[in-house]
Amino acid sequence: MTATYSELIQIFSRINKLDHALVILSWDQMVMMPPAGVDSRSESLAELSVMRHELLSDSRVGELIDTCEAKGAELSDAQRRSVFEMRRTYDDASCLPADLVKAKVVAGSTCEHGWRSQRPENDWKGFLKNFETVVSLAKEEAAVRQAHSKASTAYDALLDLHCRGDSSELIDDVFGQLKAKLPSMIDDVIERQASVGNTDHEPEQGATYPVAEQTALSKALLNSLGFDFNAGRLDVSAHPFSTGVRGDQRITTRYDETTFLDALLATAHETGHASYEAGLPDAWQGLPVGQSRNMCIHESQSLMFEKMVTLSDAFLQHLHGLITQHLTGASNLNYDQLKTQARRVTKSYIRVEADELTYPIHVALRYDIERDLINGKLEAKDIPDAWNAAMLSGLGLSTEGNYTNGCMQDIHWTDGTFGYFPSYTLGAVNSAQLFESLCAAHTDWEERFAHGDITVVREWLSNAIWQHGCHLSSQDLMKQATGRGTDPSSLLNHLNHRYGR
Amino acid sequence: MTATYSELIQIFSRINKLDHALVILSWDQMVMMPPAGVDSRSESLAELSVMRHELLSDSRVGELIDTCEAKGAELSDAQRRSVFEMRRTYDDASCLPADLVKAKVVAGSTCEHGWRSQRPENDWKGFLKNFETVVSLAKEEAAVRQAHSKASTAYDALLDLHCRGDSSELIDDVFGQLKAKLPSMIDDVIERQASVGNTDHEPEQGATYPVAEQTALSKALLNSLGFDFNAGRLDVSAHPFSTGVRGDQRITTRYDETTFLDALLATAHETGHASYEAGLPDAWQGLPVGQSRNMCIHESQSLMFEKMVTLSDAFLQHLHGLITQHLTGASNLNYDQLKTQARRVTKSYIRVEADELTYPIHVALRYDIERDLINGKLEAKDIPDAWNAAMLSGLGLSTEGNYTNGCMQDIHWTDGTFGYFPSYTLGAVNSAQLFESLCAAHTDWEERFAHGDITVVREWLSNAIWQHGCHLSSQDLMKQATGRGTDPSSLLNHLNHRYGR
Repeated sequence: MTATYSELIQIFSRINKLDHALVILSWDQMVMMPPAGVDSRSESLAELSVMRHELLSDSRVGELIDTCEAKGAELSDAQRRSVFEMRRTYDDASCLPADLVKAKVVAGSTCEHGWRSQRPENDWKGFLKNFETVVSLAKEEAAVRQAHSKASTAYDALLDLHCRGDSSELIDDVFGQLKAKLPSMIDDVIERQASVGNTDHEPEQGATYPVAEQTALSKALLNSLGFDFNAGRLDVSAHPFSTGVRGDQRITTRYDETTFLDALLATAHETGHASYEAGLPDAWQGLPVGQSRNMCIHESQSLMFEKMVTLSDAFLQHLHGLITQHLTGASNLNYDQLKTQARRVTKSYIRVEADELTYPIHVALRYDIERDLINGKLEAKDIPDAWNAAMLSGLGLSTEGNYTNGCMQDIHWTDGTFGYFPSYTLGAVNSAQLFESLCAAHTDWEERFAHGDITVVREWLSNAIWQHGCHLSSQDLMKQATGRGTDPSSLLNHLNHRYGR
Repeated sequence: MTATYSELIQIFSRINKLDHALVILSWDQMVMMPPAGVDSRSESLAELSVMRHELLSDSRVGELIDTCEAKGAELSDAQRRSVFEMRRTYDDASCLPADLVKAKVVAGSTCEHGWRSQRPENDWKGFLKNFETVVSLAKEEAAVRQAHSKASTAYDALLDLHCRGDSSELIDDVFGQLKAKLPSMIDDVIERQASVGNTDHEPEQGATYPVAEQTALSKALLNSLGFDFNAGRLDVSAHPFSTGVRGDQRITTRYDETTFLDALLATAHETGHASYEAGLPDAWQGLPVGQSRNMCIHESQSLMFEKMVTLSDAFLQHLHGLITQHLTGASNLNYDQLKTQARRVTKSYIRVEADELTYPIHVALRYDIERDLINGKLEAKDIPDAWNAAMLSGLGLSTEGNYTNGCMQDIHWTDGTFGYFPSYTLGAVNSAQLFESLCAAHTDWEERFAHGDITVVREWLSNAIWQHGCHLSSQDLMKQATGRGTDPSSLLNHLNHRYGR
């Protein structure tokens, strides 16, 4: 039995070392690679991915897992849980027919490529032609996965790839509660912010913030947030992201010399993702059970660092000091101005520009659409109408005829990624809930934050989340950390507290 | 037959895509990786190397090559040559027993690791203990390879890995001619340089050259040398090197703010290596026959760019303009001062600091020692005496008891790399010979160089060397380009011309 389990460990360890290469090559492509390198890089990445798939979906892996499952009593608890996650990983990789995988890649890449020009051209018709193939293949994939995993709906079978353990039933409930409260809260806050007439609190008009100064500021913030530059890097890319391998977490941001808050908050956000990855247990390194739980937990870590910590009143005091110290153009910025800028709520068309109050509305409408699409209750051609109706009811904005800033704004669906969007809001809900428990356990958190000391956050999260890998289900993880499963009341309390009267 | 050859192409193409990953991961390790990433990077590199070895040394590859060789008449000339190089690559990889490969890696890594502290401590005894194992395994390797390749001596079997096609018989002859002429030429030049009393021509004392200015200067030089930043990068690392993949050549240099010429010449040197790699034929991309010929040719390309082009009187005029334009601390430097600095000849203990006149003496003594060592005519323990004798007779310097700056100064032997050293001087010889032919074909070269235009060099080298991959043997390549095989008379003429009265 030990020999069988050891053989599995060896195979997954080899896969992990290929993953290492895939991670670094992909990072390099986004951050370092010169333009002419793209063809040979794509070919290398594709070949390594095929090799990875061959290793993982080899029938020998299935046989070894079968044996371990049959003789589970001879394994330790930790080993059984490890085998359970190996089974998931193996099934996810091996259950789809090779033809379908290939068709998906081709359709997704065609649709995404077309989208890059169709979006600016507001060309819904052109996009729809490619997108219908993507949807049709995604439904086919969902059917195969559902038959295999016994998921309750076709959509749940895809959701499981990104939000494993968080069902559409749970998510329906979360969004139901948020949609019942947020619209009126948003109107209320916007009205009050307008009535304050706080032009005095606006940052200086026309000020610029050189990239070199912003870079030094980002590094200072990273240091405050506990990012370890001995085991990581901060670089620049077109879109901020975080990735990494053991001992080497890499985050990126982007700088705009006319404004500084976006780059700073992107940095804080990615630090949350990176800290989770860096904090995963050494003992299960390279094994499925040693990986992050799911995207709802992952996003809760990034939003913890960005929204709960960095944007808290207390930490903003520390951040204000860092900003005035590093940015010549903001040397006269006062704390109230910073707070006004950081707390501005607006109804906008674009999800990625949304504040924490309106963000869930953007996500909820995408969730409703993709769930109904995969479950066969909505057709791709009807998405613009559904989008417009949801934007009107949620934020009072019409997107009729405006595909560019409506249903064509995101890249996610273009390559067939369905079941990912809800993780943004589940992450927000989890982060508020975790932060509530964390603050209850460390009542001096505000005093600490004001001095730029967030060690209690890192220690608490390490114990509550990071050190568990995916040994527990997402809901058990939340229950162990906060006493209850994912529940939007903490987020609503947080928003009321931060934005209410 | 076509199917057999195609299957080989597919296998070598897959190996090439793994090589892509190995190249970029290694570059990243030297240039980007944070310190804590070293363990997981080493593990990933080791695993990918094992996978590469498994793919290449698979018996199926041998069978396919056997079939192609047996039915060679059905292949085109180019395909036969391609199969010939596949055979070499396959045999090189598969002829050693796995136990020996593993023992070599362990002994080499132990010896190199020890050397890093033993060298500064002048600890020859400690080093020798590890090094004797390295030598013993290298002799074992040489014996296996010699039995397989029918090389004329054991040393030639190792030489063949780096300098394929250039035998120890040829190299003995080259060094014989150089050693007969260089010592008196060196004495002569040093005496003359001392008598000129050219302190007026020394650069300003105490001037500093900020890294940012030196970086801009290096990039300006790279542009003049035709380096394509759309298909490459320039970065900083502890030791300058060049590496790359298709469409993506990466070179590094290092900056010292108290001097600027070293970084600049390192940049020019690495540009030669990178240009050769970038100029290899597209048609054979990823195949053994599409790779560079050997290290003697590779080094001739780097020395062409560094010594023949950049240090020519004509190009120095252009370089002088770039230097005074970019370096505030050198804005008053005149052309004669630059030339004096660039042409200084000194007898020194250290190979990597040597000028082009004394460099061959350093290489010749290493060649003599490693050849005799592998052929069983010298024992490892007797190296210090042999080194001291050769330094005394070649440069009049004693290294008795001085291991740090004597026989322990280089990293090459520590991991068992024997047969590489001669490529430095064969490269110098080839570069002078190629340059002589190039200048004969383009008599206006000096006028062009003075304006920073070296397109004739790139075009001539592309036709003469780069586009041939390793379709021709090294000596046939030299004959086709210059009318004769490797012959030191051009180098001696060049040195006489540049440094003589």
